[in-house]
Amino acid sequence: MRIALLGGTGDIGEGLALRWGRDTDHELLVGSRDPEKARAAAESYVEAVKAAGGEATVKGFENGMAADRADVVVLSVPPYHVADTVEAVADVLDGDDVVVTPAAGMKRDDDGLHYHPPSAGSVTALVRESVPDGVPVVGAFHNLAAGRLANLDLDLGIDTLVIGDDADATATVSRLAEEIEGLRALSAGGLANAPEVESLTPLLVNVAMNNESMHDLGVRFS
Amino acid sequence: MRIALLGGTGDIGEGLALRWGRDTDHELLVGSRDPEKARAAAESYVEAVKAAGGEATVKGFENGMAADRADVVVLSVPPYHVADTVEAVADVLDGDDVVVTPAAGMKRDDDGLHYHPPSAGSVTALVRESVPDGVPVVGAFHNLAAGRLANLDLDLGIDTLVIGDDADATATVSRLAEEIEGLRALSAGGLANAPEVESLTPLLVNVAMNNESMHDLGVRFS
Repeated sequence: MRIALLGGTGDIGEGLALRWGRDTDHELLVGSRDPEKARAAAESYVEAVKAAGGEATVKGFENGMAADRADVVVLSVPPYHVADTVEAVADVLDGDDVVVTPAAGMKRDDDGLHYHPPSAGSVTALVRESVPDGVPVVGAFHNLAAGRLANLDLDLGIDTLVIGDDADATATVSRLAEEIEGLRALSAGGLANAPEVESLTPLLVNVAMNNESMHDLGVRFS
Repeated sequence: MRIALLGGTGDIGEGLALRWGRDTDHELLVGSRDPEKARAAAESYVEAVKAAGGEATVKGFENGMAADRADVVVLSVPPYHVADTVEAVADVLDGDDVVVTPAAGMKRDDDGLHYHPPSAGSVTALVRESVPDGVPVVGAFHNLAAGRLANLDLDLGIDTLVIGDDADATATVSRLAEEIEGLRALSAGGLANAPEVESLTPLLVNVAMNNESMHDLGVRFS
């Protein structure tokens, strides 16, 4: 399978690229607005996986080219770039693609991080509004600390929540998630359940901030 | 220590009473608007702890009498009864008491449960507004499935999040939480972080609804 990581030079894109690169045979397409930057990141990810004893296929492209070549398109960009990023690639998306959104809207104040969704109601809802009709959207990977993913020495042993309204697309993303060693995919229902899923991201940061020796936290449901 | 469980005939009150009853020597005061109901519940909790090989001190009172006698007052009532319950006991609360709020505002639709806070911004904020100034408020126990607590055959192995603006009161509640076997208390910061903590409750229900063999879910941060 070909997986595009749009904005894949950023931290969550890096983490997913390294994990899929080490743990699977999927072809990874790092996207960026700047194709040179994408190619440089792709090379560094190949090296990092090699250093961890693996062999990854990672290539760099401009975002639109990455999306055009991919079966699964992960919007690994900050929430305020989600709508622009989708707009830039919308004409290469079709019903055979799956768009994956891992972002959560947050704002920081003196107490910590707070869930702060866009006016659409959630980042997921904004993505659903922005992506052409007929192209399935799945939410996943919101609650993974990028630094923990990117450190291949660390075992994960955590869960990711998957939400979607298209059963096939949701199953595809759940399988991709579970191909990452130590990651379990759990369904949290349809896209309408996105606010509760996205709210977990600031909570994880708040818990990490307020307890000794806790950082890059994940969560396990049991 | 004397712990009042207002609305303690309900399911979360029962769960906390059974766990503290079995695992600690604290005196538990089950409160209800109907003192007869409270006394009947208290007797049944003593029996349940006895059946599990423990010995609990549990007594039943009208809510105000329970609050008056207690050091820690847990508002184990549904969110829509929180304000009324606090109002009914406000004149017996003082700065030596700690008020604990475990409720989360939720509504159900076809997709699942959603976070639906009162206009104060969170149930915790509503409690803070309702409780007299100078009486510390701590949020805790939001994310514990009542049925799992009440089944003393089940090991917990999960976390509860504690939020508060008064360090001493927060530490007291964290200690009480950790006296329950298998429960770990983690700080999620100040009361202003309540929405993210309360949002975890509907998420747990949504995850349980959408995955095989998952019910009465809890969460572990790692």
